[in-house]
Amino acid sequence: MDRAERAQMAMMLEVCAYPKPGNVDRCHDYSDTRLEHFLASTILARPAFDAAERTGGRVGGLIREAVTLTAGHAGGNTHFGAFILLIPLVLGGDIDGARRIVAGTDVEDAIDFYAAFGLTSVRMAESDDLDVNDPASIAAIRERGMTLADIMAHSAPRDMVAREWTNGFALTRRFADLLHAHGHGRQAIVAAFLDLLASEPDTFIAKKHGGAVAERTMQCAAEVLGGGRDLCAFDAECIAGGVNPGSIADITIAGIYVALGEGWQWDC
Amino acid sequence: MDRAERAQMAMMLEVCAYPKPGNVDRCHDYSDTRLEHFLASTILARPAFDAAERTGGRVGGLIREAVTLTAGHAGGNTHFGAFILLIPLVLGGDIDGARRIVAGTDVEDAIDFYAAFGLTSVRMAESDDLDVNDPASIAAIRERGMTLADIMAHSAPRDMVAREWTNGFALTRRFADLLHAHGHGRQAIVAAFLDLLASEPDTFIAKKHGGAVAERTMQCAAEVLGGGRDLCAFDAECIAGGVNPGSIADITIAGIYVALGEGWQWDC
Repeated sequence: MDRAERAQMAMMLEVCAYPKPGNVDRCHDYSDTRLEHFLASTILARPAFDAAERTGGRVGGLIREAVTLTAGHAGGNTHFGAFILLIPLVLGGDIDGARRIVAGTDVEDAIDFYAAFGLTSVRMAESDDLDVNDPASIAAIRERGMTLADIMAHSAPRDMVAREWTNGFALTRRFADLLHAHGHGRQAIVAAFLDLLASEPDTFIAKKHGGAVAERTMQCAAEVLGGGRDLCAFDAECIAGGVNPGSIADITIAGIYVALGEGWQWDC
Repeated sequence: MDRAERAQMAMMLEVCAYPKPGNVDRCHDYSDTRLEHFLASTILARPAFDAAERTGGRVGGLIREAVTLTAGHAGGNTHFGAFILLIPLVLGGDIDGARRIVAGTDVEDAIDFYAAFGLTSVRMAESDDLDVNDPASIAAIRERGMTLADIMAHSAPRDMVAREWTNGFALTRRFADLLHAHGHGRQAIVAAFLDLLASEPDTFIAKKHGGAVAERTMQCAAEVLGGGRDLCAFDAECIAGGVNPGSIADITIAGIYVALGEGWQWDC
């Protein structure tokens, strides 16, 4: 399996794994975003991963390409956060390589990233304060000479995906370690997902519903792990409230990519 | 969407559509073959479709490549029949083109096809009488100068996928027409699948369980359409008995590929 295929397999395995409280999975759709949208993006992103693996290229431009390739369906932004993690991982091969890619970004990467972000705005509520969502900032980026790594550092306090760029892919590393610890096969994905959900407030939830809901979701996941709350009931409650831990899903995908490269087996 | 992506989308949409009585779908796995196996094959077959679309090549060799690319997981033969239909369709573009591809096959295509078939034998019971499953026949093929189209004609009486090669992709055409008739979106796939299941005995079922079971499955599907049988109960009964209409699933994939090329929309 080459790196591009590993990235696609990680996207497929994440969305199929169930139950993942609050997220689209094999058992749940949202009315506007369904399992097929996630799997269509998995198929259609391939040329961006291929380019990253075979010809290199700039990380900002490749994120933009991946988002462009997957923006044609009605399911909205399924994998923007995942591409932010996967593109440097595929470019660099593994976490060490991704760190080198992050360290080498420049202003053009930042500009391309903004262009990619504009394509995803359909899924962003007006209340979102994701600071990279202001096209007027492009002039400021050039003026200040901000790299894409600088942009991510600016967003990191409120965005756990951007934070991966600043902390050496720490949660991606932790997720891969959790997969190894839980053993091979798809149930390990669900177990590792719950572990992360129970220990980190999801910043996608925080942006959408506020920090208190993100904290409460984390506590509920911890109660599931402790046996004090039913997993499927928790899942149904999250789905009903639109409380979807989308950033932890992105980190799940990155963690599966890394673990697959380290010998973790999905197929058992 | 290029042809290769259309082929992959057709494979993804078929396996996700539910309920499809007896087959792996979003709601059902078999113990040895799961949703993820079908989706892994969908991802991993890409280079064979790319080669068919971009560089042409021989249909037998490309079927062999597709099977080889997807034989690495433990889920067995997920898409052999689908590749028999999709490879000429991607090579030729549409049904007319696929007919020309079929008409141009030669002895080397037949030999490559046998090699591909050998890779899938893990999923074949000893009772299967699929006539292309005898490697000793290769010498006879060369001696008689049999083309791959000749092989398919030989198998056609007992194999509805091979029969597509001899009748100008008649059921593929019918499935695409059924999709257009049922309207856009994933529910049309289920409706068209049931229509075909209710009107044609599935030859995969016939090989596995005998002609009577294939006939009875067809009659049950007709009863579902007539309102006299519950769809989900019928699905559960098929799954429990391992009665899976795998050949109609292959034709479903080919029909989705054709319909997508004619403007049918999956995404609504």
